[in-house]
Amino acid sequence: MRRVATVVVGLVAAVSPAQSAPKPADKPPTVAQVLESAQPSDWRRPDPANTLYLDLPDGRVIIELAPRFAPEHVANIKAMVSARFFDGLPIGRVQDNYVTQWGDIDEIRKDEAASRKLPDETFIAWSKALPIVKLPDADGYAPQTGWLDQFPVGIERRPAGQVWLTHCYGTVGVGREDWPDTGSGSQLYAVIGQAPRHLDRNIVLVGRVLRGMDLLASLPRGTAALGFYSDEQKPRRTLIRSARLASELPESARTALEVLRTDTALFTRYVEARRNRREGWFVRPAGHIDVCNLPIPTR
Amino acid sequence: MRRVATVVVGLVAAVSPAQSAPKPADKPPTVAQVLESAQPSDWRRPDPANTLYLDLPDGRVIIELAPRFAPEHVANIKAMVSARFFDGLPIGRVQDNYVTQWGDIDEIRKDEAASRKLPDETFIAWSKALPIVKLPDADGYAPQTGWLDQFPVGIERRPAGQVWLTHCYGTVGVGREDWPDTGSGSQLYAVIGQAPRHLDRNIVLVGRVLRGMDLLASLPRGTAALGFYSDEQKPRRTLIRSARLASELPESARTALEVLRTDTALFTRYVEARRNRREGWFVRPAGHIDVCNLPIPTR
Repeated sequence: MRRVATVVVGLVAAVSPAQSAPKPADKPPTVAQVLESAQPSDWRRPDPANTLYLDLPDGRVIIELAPRFAPEHVANIKAMVSARFFDGLPIGRVQDNYVTQWGDIDEIRKDEAASRKLPDETFIAWSKALPIVKLPDADGYAPQTGWLDQFPVGIERRPAGQVWLTHCYGTVGVGREDWPDTGSGSQLYAVIGQAPRHLDRNIVLVGRVLRGMDLLASLPRGTAALGFYSDEQKPRRTLIRSARLASELPESARTALEVLRTDTALFTRYVEARRNRREGWFVRPAGHIDVCNLPIPTR
Repeated sequence: MRRVATVVVGLVAAVSPAQSAPKPADKPPTVAQVLESAQPSDWRRPDPANTLYLDLPDGRVIIELAPRFAPEHVANIKAMVSARFFDGLPIGRVQDNYVTQWGDIDEIRKDEAASRKLPDETFIAWSKALPIVKLPDADGYAPQTGWLDQFPVGIERRPAGQVWLTHCYGTVGVGREDWPDTGSGSQLYAVIGQAPRHLDRNIVLVGRVLRGMDLLASLPRGTAALGFYSDEQKPRRTLIRSARLASELPESARTALEVLRTDTALFTRYVEARRNRREGWFVRPAGHIDVCNLPIPTR
């Protein structure tokens, strides 16, 4: 078994800080060393009232909703969850390197809570008071990027004065028709490929997947246009067993999960350790990181 | 069926230029309009001698090798293919949002062609004579990006004078141990998530997947450390039926495939249509594109 790991340990080290050798104290720390130094206060528990469990036959997808960014869409999704709107509905679209989409794909429940008319919530107003943690690196799609409430964001202070959730791997959004329809939340999608940042501020985002992306990203791709499942594939679509807010479930049925806080000195050190990888495997530290290329650890 | 499409047509339009409505001639063209105007000379057929077929139980993965960038690694891989090195070996690692890795995962064929010592081929020397097509947009990981031989590249003219393949979705690389080992090609990986650009110039890249990424990206994730398959999963690993160069097969067994050329006026118009999406669905064109966010069409 030892030999099995050798040829790949290099590539492996790129995502496995735990494999890196300890460094002297005067050298910049590795990702693993930063995380090992985290205190309990560097972690937070997501609010159960904004934690959505999508229980699938193969496991649980855990989504953190983002009411600060899309209050009416999040409220509507929560109302639909309470009404058991999603239970039994399919995952109906899996388009490679793009999105997995679920919910009322067949539009059989259009007359229920899903039909509410909702406002444009593709961005919120920028304000100095927002506790944004800025990423030092330039970004092509936004004048500035960073994190707010542990979500990756784009920021444009002038002229627009806007802050918005960015489309990264695992970001969850609301399918819509042509503008100004913003979608009800009856069909949701998660990004399963390269960050489609050109969608930013074009469609309402409501949260991100904290755990279970492997379940959404490893599904068979739909063979019909745009990754929808073909008529032949439809009988084998994955069905949502239940969609529940964590707060609806007793403690014993909830998944214990903590997320690394972004508004801490430790997080700043974590970002730096990822901007310039210090593990022995790396020949050339990048000196840069994209906001969508920085995983936020959970435990 | 019509109703099925409506709620999602918006999100859908983002990747389905064919759905966009025709525009007057004086407006900038959409992605679909650009591609519809392509002439036969805007497409090319990959060289069969550098086209690698990875035949899996569920279909064929087609990889274009990049001898200009990594001549010795590509030559070694081709020698291994000729020696049938990969036939019967497994896909042994699938790490979500990172890589799928195949080949001599269990290191049972280390003494064969795989053992050659190869030089650093993580970049080539920049030269004015290289027919590079530059992307106008800024990039955080490289001073300049663009395409060379239809591969996405990073470019640093000064001080390094280097050009290198970038880690994008579908890029194929060579697993290695710690530097200066560069790997033999006995274990190869393809990127299946957000572009891990911090790996650029840290590991040798040898090509990219032209078709069949859906086969590599939808595999069950490995549950052991780093996405390797656990002992329990190992009996169900996907095995490579055969790895062949297209040139080794008779015409009848090859897959007809053309790739959009990048060194044409049409490609420049295509890039612009993707930098600023003109389909009716879009509210705010991005005015920017990342080199890894621009799919190069095949047909």
